[in-house]
Amino acid sequence: MSITQSTVSLYSLENYKFGVKDPQPEEDPSVAARLNRLQNEYEKYGIRRTVEGVLVVHEHNHPHVLLLQIANTFFKLPGDALKPGEDEIEGLKLRLSQKLSPASQVGLDTSDWEVGELLSIWYRPNFENFMYPYIPAHITKPKEMKKIFLIHLPEKKTFSVPKNMKLLAVPLFELYDNSARYGPQLAALPHLLSRFNYVYS
Amino acid sequence: MSITQSTVSLYSLENYKFGVKDPQPEEDPSVAARLNRLQNEYEKYGIRRTVEGVLVVHEHNHPHVLLLQIANTFFKLPGDALKPGEDEIEGLKLRLSQKLSPASQVGLDTSDWEVGELLSIWYRPNFENFMYPYIPAHITKPKEMKKIFLIHLPEKKTFSVPKNMKLLAVPLFELYDNSARYGPQLAALPHLLSRFNYVYS
Repeated sequence: MSITQSTVSLYSLENYKFGVKDPQPEEDPSVAARLNRLQNEYEKYGIRRTVEGVLVVHEHNHPHVLLLQIANTFFKLPGDALKPGEDEIEGLKLRLSQKLSPASQVGLDTSDWEVGELLSIWYRPNFENFMYPYIPAHITKPKEMKKIFLIHLPEKKTFSVPKNMKLLAVPLFELYDNSARYGPQLAALPHLLSRFNYVYS
Repeated sequence: MSITQSTVSLYSLENYKFGVKDPQPEEDPSVAARLNRLQNEYEKYGIRRTVEGVLVVHEHNHPHVLLLQIANTFFKLPGDALKPGEDEIEGLKLRLSQKLSPASQVGLDTSDWEVGELLSIWYRPNFENFMYPYIPAHITKPKEMKKIFLIHLPEKKTFSVPKNMKLLAVPLFELYDNSARYGPQLAALPHLLSRFNYVYS
């Protein structure tokens, strides 16, 4: 008897094309403004649900994660907060298209995103910057819950990146043990991705 | 459409009983001896396959992991290296019984261990202490592969711990961001356990 290990196909970075589209400015001008908006929305709608996607490619058979770099400083996964009542999988596909699909006059095509395994869940206990991969003791009402999903990429795809951001393929060995540069959520991706059986092509 | 989140039942630490049995000395007297044995066995049998189990209970609805503490110093998960050709799930059940089940004259009962989800895989690229949650670039033949599985504990159970060890219930908030004390493998457990939906009883 053996537990089946999920197999994930990874394609070479060279298989993907990268274009540019109009800038998408950050919604909040400062961290304080962001936490303030979180609090206002929490009072109206309750807990914020955020979804993010981990897009993995390979170079020389080593997995690389596609990260957005904003203004040459911080890194983040594509994704965003959902609207109240919005489905998390469909909502994640829509956010991925808004951020990474070519602009189109006929509306965004969300059909070629395949949302795969849930990798981790992060909780924000207070209207503060800290998040944890568990609900801290004595916290009954977290203010935000972020789910991070593995995205199964197709063999080929064209991405289009807002002009104020870069999309970088960052190797696992660069993320590992490097929360000083990438923060605790991104630095944990190598651990979370280790359970899959990768097929490189 | 929504990805189903696995539900895991956690029972209170008070549900479990803990006894003592004969000591089980470490197989190798030093780190150097351990790496030396790894190298000798690698030359005979190839890659070492190690399996470990994560046993989770709760106190006040916060998950705690059962860790073995050896000689009042380092912490480890129950589990061990498999023999060449040994099945990993049956082999893990046997190691858990050897370490944690009451001694018995009629042979060890391995039937009440339920090996669940694969949480992470660690690789040892060289005959050295370092392990990584991925195969490092340019490494074609790792020397050891360690799989860490979630164990689904029954509602009640009696453990029996070798006299030279302690079995401690360590809360996730103590492990988190604490590789200085617990090492990178144990400090990553909160991340790896975050994707489950826990039901506390």
